Formats: sequence, structure tokens, C-alpha cells
Amino acid sequence: MLIAAINGSPNRDGNTAMLLRETLSAAQKLGAEPHLINVAEALNDLAQPFCDSCTYPCNAACAEGNKLGEALAILRRADGLIIGSPVYYGTISGQLAAFWDKTNTLWQSKALLNVVGGAVTVAQARFGGQETTLKAIHDLMLVQGMIIVGDGHRDFDCGHHGVCAQQPSGEDVNAIERAHIMARRIVEVAGATQSLRYRS
Amino acid sequence: MLIAAINGSPNRDGNTAMLLRETLSAAQKLGAEPHLINVAEALNDLAQPFCDSCTYPCNAACAEGNKLGEALAILRRADGLIIGSPVYYGTISGQLAAFWDKTNTLWQSKALLNVVGGAVTVAQARFGGQETTLKAIHDLMLVQGMIIVGDGHRDFDCGHHGVCAQQPSGEDVNAIERAHIMARRIVEVAGATQSLRYRS
Amino acid sequence: MLIAAINGSPNRDGNTAMLLRETLSAAQKLGAEPHLINVAEALNDLAQPFCDSCTYPCNAACAEGNKLGEALAILRRADGLIIGSPVYYGTISGQLAAFWDKTNTLWQSKALLNVVGGAVTVAQARFGGQETTLKAIHDLMLVQGMIIVGDGHRDFDCGHHGVCAQQPSGEDVNAIERAHIMARRIVEVAGATQSLRYRS
Amino acid sequence: MLIAAINGSPNRDGNTAMLLRETLSAAQKLGAEPHLINVAEALNDLAQPFCDSCTYPCNAACAEGNKLGEALAILRRADGLIIGSPVYYGTISGQLAAFWDKTNTLWQSKALLNVVGGAVTVAQARFGGQETTLKAIHDLMLVQGMIIVGDGHRDFDCGHHGVCAQQPSGEDVNAIERAHIMARRIVEVAGATQSLRYRS
Repeated sequence: MLIAAINGSPNRDGNTAMLLRETLSAAQKLGAEPHLINVAEALNDLAQPFCDSCTYPCNAACAEGNKLGEALAILRRADGLIIGSPVYYGTISGQLAAFWDKTNTLWQSKALLNVVGGAVTVAQARFGGQETTLKAIHDLMLVQGMIIVGDGHRDFDCGHHGVCAQQPSGEDVNAIERAHIMARRIVEVAGATQSLRYRS
Repeated sequence: MLIAAINGSPNRDGNTAMLLRETLSAAQKLGAEPHLINVAEALNDLAQPFCDSCTYPCNAACAEGNKLGEALAILRRADGLIIGSPVYYGTISGQLAAFWDKTNTLWQSKALLNVVGGAVTVAQARFGGQETTLKAIHDLMLVQGMIIVGDGHRDFDCGHHGVCAQQPSGEDVNAIERAHIMARRIVEVAGATQSLRYRS
Repeated sequence: MLIAAINGSPNRDGNTAMLLRETLSAAQKLGAEPHLINVAEALNDLAQPFCDSCTYPCNAACAEGNKLGEALAILRRADGLIIGSPVYYGTISGQLAAFWDKTNTLWQSKALLNVVGGAVTVAQARFGGQETTLKAIHDLMLVQGMIIVGDGHRDFDCGHHGVCAQQPSGEDVNAIERAHIMARRIVEVAGATQSLRYRS
Repeated sequence: MLIAAINGSPNRDGNTAMLLRETLSAAQKLGAEPHLINVAEALNDLAQPFCDSCTYPCNAACAEGNKLGEALAILRRADGLIIGSPVYYGTISGQLAAFWDKTNTLWQSKALLNVVGGAVTVAQARFGGQETTLKAIHDLMLVQGMIIVGDGHRDFDCGHHGVCAQQPSGEDVNAIERAHIMARRIVEVAGATQSLRYRS
């Protein structure tokens, strides 16, 4: 079982990355193969980092032979997907939005249908847009046909929308615990729904 | 497999109920046992239709020997749950909110954890708050630890947030089709995740 | 200038009420006339606390000669309106939703058009649905044609979506400060827009 | 009075641009100076189109002597601001998110505090994420301290969250009418609140 995480931060070792690594590490302990995608790297070698709908339908030409293509190939195999974003103006980062816009080819082939998704956010302020950002990540996922779970688990509690942290996330003990709980939840639901993924 | 639907409209034969019956009927054809709960009836014989947190923890005294208790008993057995609401001021109806506030005893026992949920809305206007209402229904579900799916399916497309209709919903051919698709999705995901429900 | 607050909690002296009183008290110091509406009381003497669209258009018969009618009369005069709700399952309380559904007569007469609104929420958990509840309150307001402001002010910072607190709100120093800031913002914007309110 | 519009689409003559031009043209007839910003052009000549928080506080070095700088200068003078985005995966486009992330210098100086904002969206599907995208645009605005209005007006009705269209927007008569109504609303509220803008 492959559990991928997408780091929507420009910083590959920042607050968002730290929480995603915690989540992936918990998933790995439960037997999952973990993979972390940094959107900043996936977009870095592109002439045009934004989707401008160059062809219809999308032929994914911009993702050929580069890191974006590698990232999309990982997503095609993912059973679970954790998307993390720093909160930028109450919603996801431009980098994450731009990266997700590049997943058109996955949408066309329903490659993410029934992939199990959970969301992670970090902000500077205590109530700094974490929950509105989680909801935006859920929007990204729902339009791809993903299955959404929060951070609840039978051994803990029902949870809420996902994992919210306040910077610095390394000191946010509650957020780290919720990240571990969400990892367990995602692994379980992804395991149960394996036969439902639509893989061509 | 029990698929329940909650009609958040005061009208038991109105636009919301019609769409929920379509959804349940599609689920039944796929082998599910359907059950429709009208929140107006479940709340009708209560002295206090709103939760006022009379005890902590909740002892569900207000649901003893009445229709609310019957509704909660159905929810304890549900594998899938479709919540429908007319759009009232951009969000769910007061009746639906009041009913859901009465599910505290389910939350305490994690009875809805991993129950698979989908949302249905109807409004008078073309863009009349349908999607914001779907998102509020998702909030209700996420805090109960439910699994959220939209209206996508491998035989159709990835879908969006759920089923949106414009009144009169009986003439909204697109909404009826999406309701059928969502029924298939919910039945499949609920079937696959049966072992994950936490039933005491 | 009348600044009204709506307490969506069943508890008239709880966490939500406390924050609303702080907000109103700050508004009063700036010259506003404050008024606090408890939705539990406004709904208490009604045979039917939920709107069931008994007539179309609404003739407000359910609000004649009772506390609901008094509350609606206050809202008709309000220049600013702060809506507060405890977080119940990621969104507003059933009481608040039911109360707002009873404002149909205000909507018909555009009585709240350009009234300046701000939102206040309290939850038990640190990230317990406060922001999703603020957004639901904004939905209530937007459909009534209100003007939405957050908790920013030129003497402080730009703010965020509104006032979020964690229980007990009396000890949440940050929330109390944001409540004071939002009061200043609302008084200023309500003062500037006085001529735009549509009063018959 | 300057009313600016931000086109979050990569297409400068597409569905989003068309609706924004309608809105600006209606605002101009009411005496406003209109200005349309295309985010694709503003980002086009940048080595790094995404904010990577290169300095703290932001010194806006990336906006010196280029089109991004011109766009930010317009925003510093704006009294009203209409943000339009095509719906990409249930939320705003990557281009718009990336552009807004570049407004950090405006946030620091509270340049958008009390600027009056309204939102416009276009999607391919009938319920294709228009309203969730409007809400994400409101999030962008609220964190900048803006004043949010929907598409209501005393000569029409209270409106909803903003302007939603289905492609092709040139044939969406309802959306064009709502765009005109929102223009009137924004001009009026922006006119009344002129003294509240914080301009250094």
C-alpha cells in the first residue's frame, strides 16, 4: 500500500514538511510504503508552472520526462494521499494550487477516484485559517473523486476535519498526535477500499 | 447493508425528500436496505427539540421511547448515510441542525465512525447556496468521524461535492442522475469498509 | 447606532454569551447602543420553533406579540450585527439555525441589506470547528445581503475571519482582545454605511 | 473612486475576463475608474512566480520595476476589488493563488484594509464548485482585512455569495445581470467607506 504526501510549502524542511513526515512515518510503521512529494521541486523545472489548458483533453505534455511526471506517476499508484499546505491568506499556497491544476490527466483517467485523502495545515496564528485551508484541500480532493477522512480513529476519538498546527509545528504536541492518528485512519480506510481504486 | 437518509426539510414530500427517495431507491436496487428519517417527525414529540447539553456526558434521556430514539437506533446500524437539506440562508435547515445536535450519544460511542456519507441539497435559485450547504453537511459528518464521498463513480466521472438541485427537483434531470450515481458510490464504499465501523 | 448581538447558545451565561458581552461592551464605549438577543429565549414561547414556510410570502404570523417579534424588531433597526455560536458538529447550533430561519420577513423587506456583520465562535477543542462555523455564519449573513467584516482594524492588524475562542472563553485572552478589535471595526464600518441601510 | 478587478484565469479573453469586464463597465457607468489586472501577465516576467518568503518582513523585491509592481500599485489605490477565478478543482486557480501570495507587502501595510470586495467565478459544470470558489476568494479577502459584499442591492434583492456563471459566460444571462448588480453594490459601499481605507 502506497501512502503519498504532498508538501505544498516552498520550504522542504519547514513546518508543513515536518508534520507530513510524522504522518508518513506513522503510516510506514503500519506497513505502508511512504512517499513525499515536494510541489516546489515538481514545478521547478517547468517552463510554465501553471496549467493554461494548452490542449483539450490534456495530453500531459508538460509532465514528460521531468519531476512533475514522476510526481504524477506516484499519485497514480497511491492508495492514500495526505495533502499539506501552509495557510496563505486563509487558503492553500499558490504552489499547491498550481501543482494540483497540473493533475488534469489524473482526473481524466479517474486515477484518484477512491484514493483516501486527509489534510494537514500549519499557520502562524492560533486561528489563522487552518480550518478554511483544510476545507479547500477537501475541495481539491472531492473534485478528483477521492474519499475524505478526518483525524478520528476507533482507539482515540471521532476527530475533526484534519490536522491543524500552529508554528512551530515541531513543538505542537497536539498536532503531532493528530497526525499520527490520521495516519492510522488513512491506512485502515485505504486498506479496506483497495479494490475500488480505478487503475487502468 | 443499511443505507439511511436524513430528510432535513420540514416537508416530508418536498424537493429534498424526492431526491433522497431517488437515492435510496437506487441503493436498494443494489441490495441495500433503505431507511428514510424525517427530522421533523423525529423532533416532533419532544418537549425540547434543541440540545441544551442537559447532562455531561449525554445520557440520551430525551431520546427514550420516542421517534428520536428510533432514528438514533437506525443511525447506529447505518453503513451509509445520505443527509439532505433544503438550503436555508446558505446553510442547512434549523431542523437538520437541531436533529444532528441530538446525536451526541452517537458521537460519544463513535457509532458513526467510518459510516460513509454523502450530501444532497436543493435551493430555489440556480446558485442559491447549494454548495455551501453541502460543505456544512460535510462538517456535520467529519466531526462524527464519517467517511465523505462525493457524487463520482468509475462508470461515470469523478463528480463534485455531492448532489445539488434547483427546485422543483422532480424536473431537475441532472440532479436525479447525480443522486443515482452517488447511491452507487456510497453502496460500494460502504460495502468495502464494513469491518471498520465501530459497533459496540 | 444600534449594534445587536445574537447569542446562538442555549446558555445565556456561557462562553458564547461572555464573548458577545465583551464585544457589545466595547461597542458601547464607542457610542453604540448595544442589544443582546438570546435565541433560546426568542424561540422559547413558540408552538413551532422551526420555520415550516407556513405561508408564501412569509407573513411573520409566528412572530406576533412575542419575544421572537421583539428580536426581529431589534434586527430591523440594527446597524451592526454580531452573531455568536458555540460550535456544534463543525457548524452553528440548531437554535441559531432555527432562529435565523425565522428571519424570512426581514429578507423579504431587505431589512438587513448593508447591515455590518461579524462572527464569534467558541469550541471545546483547540481546532474544534471554530473557523468552519464562522464561515457558516458568514453564509447566513451574505444571503441577507449583509456586509461582512473580520476582526482587523487599522490600529492593530488586518485580522482573520472573526473571533474564535476555546473554552473557557473567559480565560482566552486572545479571543477577548480580538472581540474588542472586531467591535471597533464594526462600529466604524456601520457608521460609514448608515445611509445605505434599506429601511422602509 | 478606483474599482479594480483581478482576472485569475490564464486566458485574458475567456469566461472570467468577460464577466469581470461586464462588472467593471457597470462600475464605470456609475462614475468609477476601472482597472483590470490579469494575473497571468503580472506573474509572467518573474523569475520566481511563487512567494517563497525570501525575506521577513517582505521587502517586495520581486515586484520592483515590473508588471507585478504595477499591479500592486493599482491595488494600493483601489477602493473596491472584484476578484474573479475560473473554478479549478473546487477552488481558485493556481495563478490567482500565486498572485495573491505576492501581496504580502500590502498586508504588512494594511493597504487593503476596508477595501470593498466581491467575487466572481465560472465553471464548466452547472454545480461545478462555483460557490466553494467564491468562499475561497472571500478567505483571501478577509485575511487582508477587506470588507465583503455579495451580489445584492436595494433595487433588486439581497443576493447570494457573489457572481456564479456556467460556461460560456457570455450566454449566461443571469450571471451577467448579477455582475451588474454586484458592481452597483460595490460602488455604493466603496463610496461610503472611503474615509476608512488606510493609506500611508
